[in-house]
Amino acid sequence: MFEGIYTPIVTPFNDDEEIDYEKMYHNLDRWGETDLAGIVVLGSNGEFVFLSLDEKLKLVKEVIGHFTKGKKVIAGTGCESTRETIELSKKVAELGAVAVLVLPPHYYKAGMKDEILYRHYVDVGDESPVPVFVYNMPGNTGINLSSSLVARLSRHPNIVGIKDTSGSIVQLSELVRDTEDDFAVFPGNAGYLYPGLAIGAKGATLALANILPQDCCTLFSLFKGGRMDEAQALQLRMLEINSLVTIKLGIPALKAAMDMLGYQGGKPRRPLRPLPEEGRKLLQEALRRYGGIG
Amino acid sequence: MFEGIYTPIVTPFNDDEEIDYEKMYHNLDRWGETDLAGIVVLGSNGEFVFLSLDEKLKLVKEVIGHFTKGKKVIAGTGCESTRETIELSKKVAELGAVAVLVLPPHYYKAGMKDEILYRHYVDVGDESPVPVFVYNMPGNTGINLSSSLVARLSRHPNIVGIKDTSGSIVQLSELVRDTEDDFAVFPGNAGYLYPGLAIGAKGATLALANILPQDCCTLFSLFKGGRMDEAQALQLRMLEINSLVTIKLGIPALKAAMDMLGYQGGKPRRPLRPLPEEGRKLLQEALRRYGGIG
Amino acid sequence: MFEGIYTPIVTPFNDDEEIDYEKMYHNLDRWGETDLAGIVVLGSNGEFVFLSLDEKLKLVKEVIGHFTKGKKVIAGTGCESTRETIELSKKVAELGAVAVLVLPPHYYKAGMKDEILYRHYVDVGDESPVPVFVYNMPGNTGINLSSSLVARLSRHPNIVGIKDTSGSIVQLSELVRDTEDDFAVFPGNAGYLYPGLAIGAKGATLALANILPQDCCTLFSLFKGGRMDEAQALQLRMLEINSLVTIKLGIPALKAAMDMLGYQGGKPRRPLRPLPEEGRKLLQEALRRYGGIG
Amino acid sequence: MFEGIYTPIVTPFNDDEEIDYEKMYHNLDRWGETDLAGIVVLGSNGEFVFLSLDEKLKLVKEVIGHFTKGKKVIAGTGCESTRETIELSKKVAELGAVAVLVLPPHYYKAGMKDEILYRHYVDVGDESPVPVFVYNMPGNTGINLSSSLVARLSRHPNIVGIKDTSGSIVQLSELVRDTEDDFAVFPGNAGYLYPGLAIGAKGATLALANILPQDCCTLFSLFKGGRMDEAQALQLRMLEINSLVTIKLGIPALKAAMDMLGYQGGKPRRPLRPLPEEGRKLLQEALRRYGGIG
Repeated sequence: MFEGIYTPIVTPFNDDEEIDYEKMYHNLDRWGETDLAGIVVLGSNGEFVFLSLDEKLKLVKEVIGHFTKGKKVIAGTGCESTRETIELSKKVAELGAVAVLVLPPHYYKAGMKDEILYRHYVDVGDESPVPVFVYNMPGNTGINLSSSLVARLSRHPNIVGIKDTSGSIVQLSELVRDTEDDFAVFPGNAGYLYPGLAIGAKGATLALANILPQDCCTLFSLFKGGRMDEAQALQLRMLEINSLVTIKLGIPALKAAMDMLGYQGGKPRRPLRPLPEEGRKLLQEALRRYGGIG
Repeated sequence: MFEGIYTPIVTPFNDDEEIDYEKMYHNLDRWGETDLAGIVVLGSNGEFVFLSLDEKLKLVKEVIGHFTKGKKVIAGTGCESTRETIELSKKVAELGAVAVLVLPPHYYKAGMKDEILYRHYVDVGDESPVPVFVYNMPGNTGINLSSSLVARLSRHPNIVGIKDTSGSIVQLSELVRDTEDDFAVFPGNAGYLYPGLAIGAKGATLALANILPQDCCTLFSLFKGGRMDEAQALQLRMLEINSLVTIKLGIPALKAAMDMLGYQGGKPRRPLRPLPEEGRKLLQEALRRYGGIG
Repeated sequence: MFEGIYTPIVTPFNDDEEIDYEKMYHNLDRWGETDLAGIVVLGSNGEFVFLSLDEKLKLVKEVIGHFTKGKKVIAGTGCESTRETIELSKKVAELGAVAVLVLPPHYYKAGMKDEILYRHYVDVGDESPVPVFVYNMPGNTGINLSSSLVARLSRHPNIVGIKDTSGSIVQLSELVRDTEDDFAVFPGNAGYLYPGLAIGAKGATLALANILPQDCCTLFSLFKGGRMDEAQALQLRMLEINSLVTIKLGIPALKAAMDMLGYQGGKPRRPLRPLPEEGRKLLQEALRRYGGIG
Repeated sequence: MFEGIYTPIVTPFNDDEEIDYEKMYHNLDRWGETDLAGIVVLGSNGEFVFLSLDEKLKLVKEVIGHFTKGKKVIAGTGCESTRETIELSKKVAELGAVAVLVLPPHYYKAGMKDEILYRHYVDVGDESPVPVFVYNMPGNTGINLSSSLVARLSRHPNIVGIKDTSGSIVQLSELVRDTEDDFAVFPGNAGYLYPGLAIGAKGATLALANILPQDCCTLFSLFKGGRMDEAQALQLRMLEINSLVTIKLGIPALKAAMDMLGYQGGKPRRPLRPLPEEGRKLLQEALRRYGGIG
């Protein structure tokens, strides 16, 4: 059901730290023209942790209202409490989200044993009106969802996939091996898109696709077409930019890169700050090296 | 200005996962009869991450309204965004909180460089109507606030102290050495209350004081009175229970221990679950070994 | 120059903890009949840290003397000091090793900055009579050799490859991208053999090849022949056994599996102990699931 | 039996990376004039991992031969294999070492479960002719010896103490609480000497005592004399220098500081390198701030 390339879209803010919807519409229009299978709103790159509940709901509504028909919109709804996660999932489903991407509760790291997390996801899966994607993001949450836990969750009829940003290709392989056949295993970072597809992933959710959506889709097509050498070459070429806008410089760099490439990134909300000049130079050089953009 | 023992109070929930105010009043009455200098509402042990904004505000109001006059109420107001942290700080100040305890933003761990955190805390310090306590909690946040960062923050006139739960006695020592003289360095766990006081801490904020408030205060008094051997002995005696209700079994154990000791812990909110039977036994045995409670 | 599958051979010990050469000869004969490109003696799986200098030299001599002509023997020579590493490299070269595999010094972890490691490897590369393979093994050493450091080292004419056991497919990709063209990038664990080859690795050094040498070589051949689906399927099938004999149960399990499969694993040296019964059962079940061995 | 301040002595090397015994004698004479209870040879600060077996034995012999009678010499004998550890312990005992300090095997980190480590230490304790000190050094070994494991080991008649460099004051407290009464719990870093003593340590083994032996002994005396405020003040004053010569800049800084203070540090052996100029400046400034040395 879910396959292809998705991007977790950024949320542009204006100088007053309010969501800048004009910039958002501009970006949505451009992404809509690509081969992206869909987008994720309220993901990590969307600075969802900085948004109030009202802002979240309005944002989902606007994004769904303005994005190309025929492409999917998934909404991030992970909250620390189970019931808040369920409530938010119900609300975004009502607004038209086709699925929810659910980050695990993680503040009480020591308490988040497999059994606790299992029951949390099952409770959410039971109550969410739309299918649930599990979201494994150890870099931000400090906890890793083991492949055995996710395999158990894949037996739930309403839990349909995982975005795995652990960076472990072995874990990704185990997910492919152990989850149900129709369960969508998605690498969560473009740094291992090609190896992830090679090992059996059905698609991917990539921050990089905010700025290079078509190239990410091209890599997917090359792989699907069996053109492995070209896919490998494109993968290697993508690494540098991808590393800058995700691991090394993060959201401020992703937003700056959008501005450099004809999108409208806007500002981040505090405590994040616009990318300093030094970072901008690194980014420009990397984009120059990257060359023509598909 | 701030010294002595504080406890970050638990939030009792009923079977429907709603805040149980009757239980809260009961606990407040009991804590009010002790030598505690004050309490912290909306701290980690208060499951603040599970509460909506409305719940937080009502809780602060009720707690301040019902707690013994003459003791201090500090409120936790750390949010991921700077502006939400400021807004919440203003609201709890209006409700009567004498200070705010501010957890750092931590979701974007890789982006939380010292300079970003410095500016965040300065912005909050500038805008908060009441003094700011920094809250270092690496076990839950995954980031550690270095002593050099906190030393810089201590120069701000409205940043007045730190609760440090890093567990590093060297870091605590550096904080004592490098922060302003009137800056309150508080260990954040009873596991190192006595060593912390020995090295120069002025007080402490201790989950253990939910269940053993008077014993924590006794240790403080013994130290103040120069009765080091007794303080050391009490410290060693406290370790086991403290470890169970903080590191090893967490909030569900703290709440269960409250029930065992005449307080009313109530239930945790999901994804947390009531302490399983096996944990209850460990806890009961440890409480039995602990013996008479001062 | 270096490509194909190598295995870091185990060192069988007898009941008195002495090296059991008869068992070693038996294993060498069997490995010699496979498509392995070569073997590594004195690697991590060879318990090199438990061997005295005299034992190391005798072992290298015996292994080279008894192993099939036409296959390569690489010797592990990493010691904590630079000069001991150089001396050992000279001695094994004299005994006929075609290359040395050099683990970084790692006891003084905090002191092992990139520049210190760079100079160490350059000194070793300058003095070693045979080519140097860098050995990145963070799981055991606690330090990771960054792709930028290894890229610099690849410019040295006598540093010819890396065994990378970091488990990071992104790092492996960066190594392929940034090292010299004739530099051999080898994944160091069979858990990511296929993804590693897909991204450009020229070969691999695999503990699993102690017990499943021909299957590892088959996966390599399938990949070389463009039979990606079969390679992927074999990769997934290998994961469980590989995980047991490397990450989960380690050398005692690898030796027990050798015994189960017609090799002669012998005992480990203390502090390691023979695999307990419970582990043996897990292993037997996994081998049964694995099925026919190519 | 063991109490007071020990220092793990540095090993001076000359320009050819050979042990410089003249410098060693000079240092031994100076340490001999202090109130140190003894020294540890072949400890981490002695660069024991860079020494051959012959060098180790000669060094132990020379140190015992030249050090002040009446003070104790403990020798580090931890090797990766159990039997090599036992052999070395027997040899240094024959040379006159009064005890051995035994680092745990740690290369196979994942395999070093409590039971494996327990049996290793019991085997060493059974065979060593002199008492055994356990050496917990997670910063270098990557494994932590839990307080429950050490408590079990303290029941062995020939295992008499621990040097704990974990930095956890809670763990140190648990060791005091759970080990046998005559078991010597020693903090292994001067950063928490005073808190360690306060919680019940009987002595300490401190790299800092290479350069400030008498000040470390003074802190010990102040504590013993109940002069807590002075002990605390001296502790805070020591932190900066201690941090530089241990955590931040390590052995090269410790050796440079020796030269600055009238000792003879000599050079480190490669891969370590003499302290760069920048580090020397930091060190000189810190020593100037530290002021008069007792």
